[in-house]
Amino acid sequence: MASINQVIDRFIDENMERYLAETMELCALPSVSATGEGIKACADKVEEILARHGLEVQRFETPGNPIFVGKAAGESERTLLFYNHYDVQPPEPLELWTTPPYEPAIRDGKLFARGSSDDKGEFISRLMAIDAVREAHGGDLPCGVVVVIEGQEEVGSPHIAQFVQEHLELLASHAAVWEEGGVGREGPTTLLGKRGVLDVELFVETIRRDAHSGGANLLPSAAWRLVWALASLKDSCERILIPGFYDDLKEPTALDREMYEIYPNLLQEQQAMLDQYGIKEFLGGKRGVEAELMVFEPTCNIQGITTGYQGKGGKTVIPARASAKLDFRLLLDQDPDDIEAKLRAHLDAQGFSDVKIERGGAMWPAKVPADDPFVRLSAETAEEVYGMPYHILPTTGGSSPVYAFAKPLGNIPVVTAGVGYWDKASHAPDEHIRIEDFRNGTRHVARILAGFDKI
Amino acid sequence: MASINQVIDRFIDENMERYLAETMELCALPSVSATGEGIKACADKVEEILARHGLEVQRFETPGNPIFVGKAAGESERTLLFYNHYDVQPPEPLELWTTPPYEPAIRDGKLFARGSSDDKGEFISRLMAIDAVREAHGGDLPCGVVVVIEGQEEVGSPHIAQFVQEHLELLASHAAVWEEGGVGREGPTTLLGKRGVLDVELFVETIRRDAHSGGANLLPSAAWRLVWALASLKDSCERILIPGFYDDLKEPTALDREMYEIYPNLLQEQQAMLDQYGIKEFLGGKRGVEAELMVFEPTCNIQGITTGYQGKGGKTVIPARASAKLDFRLLLDQDPDDIEAKLRAHLDAQGFSDVKIERGGAMWPAKVPADDPFVRLSAETAEEVYGMPYHILPTTGGSSPVYAFAKPLGNIPVVTAGVGYWDKASHAPDEHIRIEDFRNGTRHVARILAGFDKI
Repeated sequence: MASINQVIDRFIDENMERYLAETMELCALPSVSATGEGIKACADKVEEILARHGLEVQRFETPGNPIFVGKAAGESERTLLFYNHYDVQPPEPLELWTTPPYEPAIRDGKLFARGSSDDKGEFISRLMAIDAVREAHGGDLPCGVVVVIEGQEEVGSPHIAQFVQEHLELLASHAAVWEEGGVGREGPTTLLGKRGVLDVELFVETIRRDAHSGGANLLPSAAWRLVWALASLKDSCERILIPGFYDDLKEPTALDREMYEIYPNLLQEQQAMLDQYGIKEFLGGKRGVEAELMVFEPTCNIQGITTGYQGKGGKTVIPARASAKLDFRLLLDQDPDDIEAKLRAHLDAQGFSDVKIERGGAMWPAKVPADDPFVRLSAETAEEVYGMPYHILPTTGGSSPVYAFAKPLGNIPVVTAGVGYWDKASHAPDEHIRIEDFRNGTRHVARILAGFDKI
Repeated sequence: MASINQVIDRFIDENMERYLAETMELCALPSVSATGEGIKACADKVEEILARHGLEVQRFETPGNPIFVGKAAGESERTLLFYNHYDVQPPEPLELWTTPPYEPAIRDGKLFARGSSDDKGEFISRLMAIDAVREAHGGDLPCGVVVVIEGQEEVGSPHIAQFVQEHLELLASHAAVWEEGGVGREGPTTLLGKRGVLDVELFVETIRRDAHSGGANLLPSAAWRLVWALASLKDSCERILIPGFYDDLKEPTALDREMYEIYPNLLQEQQAMLDQYGIKEFLGGKRGVEAELMVFEPTCNIQGITTGYQGKGGKTVIPARASAKLDFRLLLDQDPDDIEAKLRAHLDAQGFSDVKIERGGAMWPAKVPADDPFVRLSAETAEEVYGMPYHILPTTGGSSPVYAFAKPLGNIPVVTAGVGYWDKASHAPDEHIRIEDFRNGTRHVARILAGFDKI
């Protein structure tokens, strides 16, 4: 009799065409959350697809785009959650696509389309994994599944946290497989943490309209007020000067450091990054493990500044208005609400009460312990599927709504596993997945699902 | 027998229509130096008009627009120079004009057109003054005249200083009547000084292209580099921190202060300015004479800053490039070349060698002593013409190429006298002159010319 894994793999091999076709069907529908283009039709298609795979589907309207939950019961009382999203980044610039973004095309063993990697292909791969495990278990699942698919991940998931809070029972589960998994330059890799983020815009208006710069001794300049306010936030050694900013920050653990120490070709990867940006060294001259560990430092980044005259030549004006967009990347146990309050208190204390703060969005940090049995399951199954070592990294520089699920659902462990790879061009022209990664990512997720009731 | 002044006034009264028509003829031709629109045709017309009034005309090509010099000899060896320009500001926004900018129209005792006040009407007024004085002197002039009219005043007069240096003999004169004279809120007024100005743009590029803000612990941000460099230039008490910046600065004199002390309705004018900009007080809480004297302080003004993402919402990028446009207003004896060198030295010393400086333009400060006989002549003739006190102010917040003439020609005194008034809307829609000011400004300039050989 064939082993569970043999049945899973045979199912996947025999049905690849069908699931690739389903991926292409979904990728043919635009669904740009930034502009709203195509969202409704794509959401309806997602609902249809979830039902097509035997899941009990619920549709939830939000102030933004609908969120869907597909559920299936399992033999054990354990439940595994999958998180994906059906919205995509805008496809522009269109002229850089080899084939149009919404006309999915297969060439050279790759499937090209906007959303192929991020995140429609990964969504379909998970449905294939569920179907494969059902096949291997005589039609049943060994554990329950909750498939959550939202429509605003690319614009910061503004409604997902509240949705989770309001549906704790519906979403109750014991672990989650996140999006954006797959194969890094050094082989299959998972990330155990995400930084939090606080997005704010600072605004200041000093005079009713721009004035002639001959009056600069008398009229307050919004440009200068903003420069001084910004300079009060971080010194040129990159130290953030907001009182209490670092209070709740945890040091990286010995295990965090070890994950980088055993990660292969760190220096080569860093050299590639230095070359890509045309610089000789990273900030502070950091290199190797020390450079990687900088991801455990929070940041205060200026996304952009706008004030006054920006055209050709000069214009002798005193700007009336100035604004800067900032993002703060945060780590455990920093809280975006607390950081915003500290930012406000700092600006007030420095004499910048006239500088207004408008929050753009916030996500909380999240982290899974490296020694969690679910991480082990993910690692062991990956090594079996890919036939090579599985790399585990403690966190990533970016942010995601992992926090919205992990803590409210009872500090459940979350891993990334999926169909992407390091050169997938998500968010860019010619976004694609390698068909071999689609196969292997599905085999990996199916094994996690098949083994989940035993840990 | 009629006095000189009676003949002058009769000539002006009898010929107003003709000179207004000539002003309208010239204003009907666009001549926007910022875009080049109409410059050639307008320059040709200027040449024709100068010759029409019996001046010996020379046309000088420059790397920019032509400069014209019209000369006439006089009975004495003394020579008076007039400075004007034939270029205008762009007329936009067109929809705010009551009648089109290049279709000169007279209504309510005013002549509306782009250039009517700044500076074509003033140019024609001076030709009328010369013609009136000739009429009163039996066809001759009591002193020589040099009429200089350039075509790039509205873009910072980039070629005038070199032109003067190369034509010192041609332009040799004993005093000059500058543009932009006329009637202020409190009556006829002249300004004895102009601040200098240094325009620069600071640029910094830290990485080859914008990066994801998750990398902000490792990749240097151009936005932050620029903020820190700018914050190093001026503190929030408005003190400029560039070493040596204030070294060559002269204190205002007792006479400078006195000019403000006797100036009428200072507080009311300042209140109007506070109301216009919607602020409760000027920088440093200055008011009255102390506020006016701030014009003797140099400035470091940010015209604009641009870096990173400036659209709607946020974008998690580290900006690769950032730039800021600055202008420094300077006073005697500050030298823009020296200030630029000190700015470079300061940035280098502060660790900002990566911040590049690109000069946009420069003008030197200039100032005429209030007790110069030429200032007295201007004051006495104005009081006779306008029948009210003449106001003399020591300097203005803005800058002009006065410096390009005054010092090279032997520290000649320069006054403003002309046809404008405080609400003329130059640089704005519905620019206009009052016909009564056109008459009085001409009478005033004619009297200066008629009396110049006697001082």
